Amino acid sequence: MKHKSRHKKYLKKALRLAAKGMFTTGANPRVGCLLVKNGQVIAEAYHQRVGEPHAEALALQQAGSKAAGATAYVTLEPCSHQGRNPPCADALIHAGIKRVVVCNDDPNPLVAGQGYDKLRNAGISVISGLLAERGDELNRGFFHRMHTCLPWVRCKLAQSIDGRTAMASGESFWITGKPARSHVQYWRGRSGAIITGIETVLADDCQLTVRPDQLPQKYRKLGHDFAQQQPLRVVIDSELRIPPAARVFEHAATVLVVTASENRQKSQQLEALGAQVKVLPDQQGAVDLGAVIRYLGTIEINEVLVESGPTLAGAMLQQQLLDELLIFTAPVIMGSAARPLFKIDIEEMAKRLHIKPIQFKALGNDWLIRALVKQ
Amino acid sequence: MKHKSRHKKYLKKALRLAAKGMFTTGANPRVGCLLVKNGQVIAEAYHQRVGEPHAEALALQQAGSKAAGATAYVTLEPCSHQGRNPPCADALIHAGIKRVVVCNDDPNPLVAGQGYDKLRNAGISVISGLLAERGDELNRGFFHRMHTCLPWVRCKLAQSIDGRTAMASGESFWITGKPARSHVQYWRGRSGAIITGIETVLADDCQLTVRPDQLPQKYRKLGHDFAQQQPLRVVIDSELRIPPAARVFEHAATVLVVTASENRQKSQQLEALGAQVKVLPDQQGAVDLGAVIRYLGTIEINEVLVESGPTLAGAMLQQQLLDELLIFTAPVIMGSAARPLFKIDIEEMAKRLHIKPIQFKALGNDWLIRALVKQ
Repeated sequence: MKHKSRHKKYLKKALRLAAKGMFTTGANPRVGCLLVKNGQVIAEAYHQRVGEPHAEALALQQAGSKAAGATAYVTLEPCSHQGRNPPCADALIHAGIKRVVVCNDDPNPLVAGQGYDKLRNAGISVISGLLAERGDELNRGFFHRMHTCLPWVRCKLAQSIDGRTAMASGESFWITGKPARSHVQYWRGRSGAIITGIETVLADDCQLTVRPDQLPQKYRKLGHDFAQQQPLRVVIDSELRIPPAARVFEHAATVLVVTASENRQKSQQLEALGAQVKVLPDQQGAVDLGAVIRYLGTIEINEVLVESGPTLAGAMLQQQLLDELLIFTAPVIMGSAARPLFKIDIEEMAKRLHIKPIQFKALGNDWLIRALVKQ
Repeated sequence: MKHKSRHKKYLKKALRLAAKGMFTTGANPRVGCLLVKNGQVIAEAYHQRVGEPHAEALALQQAGSKAAGATAYVTLEPCSHQGRNPPCADALIHAGIKRVVVCNDDPNPLVAGQGYDKLRNAGISVISGLLAERGDELNRGFFHRMHTCLPWVRCKLAQSIDGRTAMASGESFWITGKPARSHVQYWRGRSGAIITGIETVLADDCQLTVRPDQLPQKYRKLGHDFAQQQPLRVVIDSELRIPPAARVFEHAATVLVVTASENRQKSQQLEALGAQVKVLPDQQGAVDLGAVIRYLGTIEINEVLVESGPTLAGAMLQQQLLDELLIFTAPVIMGSAARPLFKIDIEEMAKRLHIKPIQFKALGNDWLIRALVKQ
């Protein structure tokens, strides 16, 4: 037990290191690595960007020959295959690491236990599965994509205590206070894509970019590339109504407009701004939302944030495309004429949808309820 | 500081004693008293029922001559006036108590600081205002009524995360699970009156009685008289539509039907069952809800629980008759066609109503948000 609590202490530190890559690892998982020898931390590193070295490689480089005989605390099973980087399992073996302690198994079918096998075959002791839930939280999107080829889709909603997201007129600024809105920046920042609907773009002329200066204080020190690279903003726009002057095109290189319309002229106009346009119609002539999510999986997006009105959010809920809800709730009553949380018709209690709350968090006067959607 | 923490320790015990009268003190406040001498608790008592001795009197009786030189921990300022019982301040003086430590000042205009004055004039040291918030929580209704002549009105609601209280058809069994429903029994039990609307009676044929065997475990050991005496069930029934066979009349002696109808025949029929009927019309021919609350104040009801549908709850909210909300929320989505939390029209964000959450409590899979309504 004493060993276990020491292992957990170091793994927690490795998890905090991994979290430094929150805004930059892109398609890759967030991974931290700590080398400990004789009770001393001799190296600590985390993976920062696709194409840059893995956490284990960076830590081994830091430790140099001191690595021999050390224990490696790694938040994810070391890779065993030659990818963009040489296999970390081999590097750990060559450095003379004597023990490896890990949170999560690598769900990548190219690794899947082979990292452990390699290490064990070389006589290295392996302990796995410690603090796995915390590791899951860090890389839920990556793990989900490895298992399903789909991104993990979160839907952010801001509501009153009586479940309303805007007045009947559409007025909704602001339901929640600054701390809640600042927290949304964090969820945007860790997402590879943000989905919204054309109605939201037309009503609010929103950019849906991450503003690093509006991040909650504790995340401001994390590295990011938001000046160069914003999450992909995906606008669902069945009839291609988006005006070329929409502010979302201020960072047009990271805008994808998905439509059901074959209007080539309008498409070319948007493409000339630097945006991408994709035609993904369903049989009703609207955008095929499932196809959008599948497409985002193919371009290696791990985490998606939906920030839309109740119509698009309701359609995605109905089509079982949402994995997690981020419900920011304000201590106000907006009344029964105001707009709903989700536009979705449910007729009987037996058909109500179930969610599983995983976190309650106070944010100023508001609170966030994070919940998984039960399929 | 050391003294203060010792005082608080004993006052907490006195508060727990006071809470034993939760279901029985009626119009009176819940009060506990502890006598401590040389670090030993020599007596402990609480007020149980209107007409029975006060907590201080019971504790002094227990201690007998040993009370001389003891410290009395009392949750409420000892009374100084001759009421149904002799003044407790006098009794404490006569017993030779040397110090009195108190949570809340008595807001009763017949006491109002005079209890402290009497004690101090007799050379007794008085410390007041410790753990006052916990004392407030215990006697919020009594204190509110002393200040305003009105009861403290709580509104109990059971909703989905998207703010819905029933399907469009009216179906609503059950939104929340057993632990939440059991908790409602506690709130009923501590209320002097329960208000509901005729629509709820017609739809559910509910009794709205307290079922002691359904109380949460921790409250089952508290004394109660529910077999003999239920909280007054108040049915708001403008047109006197309630059927004499309604199950609420199974304990007709504690039913009050409030109407705007002058139908004497129907009134007499209900009165023959043992129920009371009151005609309190407003200018629109509906029941004057404010008059109902004022009336409950005049019959010395401290705490009222509203358990109704969204129409009555919305009307009471709009008329500023609600002091506190008990919002039981279930992890389900019931959709945008379902019934609202409050039927109330609000047109602009500037006119939204503000609430102040005072407690979040997990109850099985559901959670309770208690909030004050800001006037």
